[in-house]
Amino acid sequence: MSDGIGLVETKRVVVFEGEDPLTLESGAVVKEVEVAYETYGELNEERSNAVFICHALSGDAHAAGHHKGDDPQRPGWWDNLIGPGRPLDTDRFFVICANVLGGCKGTTGPASIDPDTGKPYGLRFPLIQVRDLVTVHRALLRELGISRLLAAIGGSLGGMQALQWSIDHPGEIDGALMVAASARLSAQNIAFSAVAREAIMHDPDFAGGDYYGTGKRPGRGLGLARMIGHITYLSEESMREKFGRRIQDAELPRYGFDVDFQVESYLHYQGQSFVERFDANTYLYLGRVMDYFDPFSDPVKVQRQLARGDTGFLVLSFDSDWRFSTDHARDLAAELRHAGASVTFREISSPHGHDSFLFPTPDYHQTVAGYMDRLASAAGVDD
Amino acid sequence: MSDGIGLVETKRVVVFEGEDPLTLESGAVVKEVEVAYETYGELNEERSNAVFICHALSGDAHAAGHHKGDDPQRPGWWDNLIGPGRPLDTDRFFVICANVLGGCKGTTGPASIDPDTGKPYGLRFPLIQVRDLVTVHRALLRELGISRLLAAIGGSLGGMQALQWSIDHPGEIDGALMVAASARLSAQNIAFSAVAREAIMHDPDFAGGDYYGTGKRPGRGLGLARMIGHITYLSEESMREKFGRRIQDAELPRYGFDVDFQVESYLHYQGQSFVERFDANTYLYLGRVMDYFDPFSDPVKVQRQLARGDTGFLVLSFDSDWRFSTDHARDLAAELRHAGASVTFREISSPHGHDSFLFPTPDYHQTVAGYMDRLASAAGVDD
Repeated sequence: MSDGIGLVETKRVVVFEGEDPLTLESGAVVKEVEVAYETYGELNEERSNAVFICHALSGDAHAAGHHKGDDPQRPGWWDNLIGPGRPLDTDRFFVICANVLGGCKGTTGPASIDPDTGKPYGLRFPLIQVRDLVTVHRALLRELGISRLLAAIGGSLGGMQALQWSIDHPGEIDGALMVAASARLSAQNIAFSAVAREAIMHDPDFAGGDYYGTGKRPGRGLGLARMIGHITYLSEESMREKFGRRIQDAELPRYGFDVDFQVESYLHYQGQSFVERFDANTYLYLGRVMDYFDPFSDPVKVQRQLARGDTGFLVLSFDSDWRFSTDHARDLAAELRHAGASVTFREISSPHGHDSFLFPTPDYHQTVAGYMDRLASAAGVDD
Repeated sequence: MSDGIGLVETKRVVVFEGEDPLTLESGAVVKEVEVAYETYGELNEERSNAVFICHALSGDAHAAGHHKGDDPQRPGWWDNLIGPGRPLDTDRFFVICANVLGGCKGTTGPASIDPDTGKPYGLRFPLIQVRDLVTVHRALLRELGISRLLAAIGGSLGGMQALQWSIDHPGEIDGALMVAASARLSAQNIAFSAVAREAIMHDPDFAGGDYYGTGKRPGRGLGLARMIGHITYLSEESMREKFGRRIQDAELPRYGFDVDFQVESYLHYQGQSFVERFDANTYLYLGRVMDYFDPFSDPVKVQRQLARGDTGFLVLSFDSDWRFSTDHARDLAAELRHAGASVTFREISSPHGHDSFLFPTPDYHQTVAGYMDRLASAAGVDD
């Protein structure tokens, strides 16, 4: 294991403004869009080694390395995958990660100032779709002088972005790697999402989304949403092993309504620490982005689109993931194949549930590394 | 299929009061306990045909038939199981169902008046355990002149009561039928319970449990808790078949934060209608009853207890139940066998998830009917 990429910084660039606003899939317009992003490694002369990381619901642009002043032991969220000698090898690839549109980590979103009013958008920020996230990522690449990706890779919502990008822009991506992703949320997925949304929007401090500057935030609702999320991110088995029925800081139950079991304490901590770092409106917007995602709604069109390019697809699932189970991945792979695409599908054994995409399971990392090798070799990246 | 048992009524009886208060497992005392119950069929001369129904978290004493003025098409919650010619055959058995201690359907609970203060208990009602629910059911039987049960049967929390009863009072029950039950909640079960509790207790209208008489109720929190519950009661498959990704009352998505998908609409309706009929404090108390349930914590004692009686056990699970999966049932059956009990275990195929115990699946009903036949025959009920 190498030392990783060390010190990094988040950069920002305005990608839409003035005469060139962002027009969304819905037709709505966002006048100014700034994007926060990080890059790792060097773009080669041929500009053929760019790899784009698409992040999941609660992710951000800080995927690897550490920021000045931060604990080097707590690097970016996908650090184990990115760096010299790692599957996304920064000695070979130029890796880019950007906070998504609607995010709260530097890219324009509901907490940003609406130039028309001089106040934060709140729920006046227009509804967005996966396609719009891709539009903004592509605008960033244009700024960076990159017109083609060796790969786009993402877990969960990140995988959905890589998929939509590949379908909508044939010939722009050599390989799309979708990890723990889905071509569409199931009824159960949508149900969990609805409960999380309800928790946030019914928090009295939500104030219809206009809580910015009030000194209050819908922390209880967002914390509750995150607790629900966490249950779906872990497998039943990993929860059992991690917590079982153990009591927090005691041998015997205290019998009461306060936190008593370790698993309760863990969920509370997850909920509270999330509230400190994340914006409730972004949670709502990106949740809805996932609910409505349905890239194969017109399969004939997908077939036509994919035929215009030659993107290869790697679809990975984890056997303990019950949020986007292997059934989701199999359906996704089958639909891509049906549309004529070249698809590699693998189910990886890992106990960590949906969160498995964040863990350095050897089989998983080797599969990604092997696929990247093939892409690099086909593109002549190492020549 | 017979016509069912027709008109029934809920009766009430005070089972603890004055010199004879209820002392709980915790040592706390409830001065007066009234119980709401219903009976179906006739007690035979030998008093050997009594069957006790233990209800689940949101159940009540009204298990079968219909009340005066009610729609006969909407009978009690387990009507398909109870009645002439049905598995719990009221031509042969005297069936009793009572609202549990801590309930909100006629039996003393947190909404009842505390005789010491003249005000509703709220959260001053003492914490209760499954064992306490059993104590109150036994007191009711004493009032009815019944000292021995042909069977105790229940689904989910109901099955837990039948189990605890059999362990604590050997020789009092011929057969305990536990359907979709568990010997202990898993970490994931406790996690869902914690989120539901949090939703209720963080609702501003909860007012620390003292919302009675304020004109307000923690409806949002309780509705949210019920929505979460419902997701865990249905199987992913049944949700998919029932709702899929269909939009409510429209062909195309409306794209917004309001209810849009059918599954969202369904969950909302379930949450709201539950709020109208159920008390939030009862939800908290019975949720905690389940969290802390752990009847095999001292397996040697269980073995000793069971050896003093000859209760037979039927353990049933449903293959689509992911709340109390077949793993829970297998563990329960194994622990009972290990303690020396005679156990019949069956996994029933049914698509309805945890809620399967409420559906008249033929294999399920035949299994219950067959087991009841054996109990009746051994006890000479039909002689």
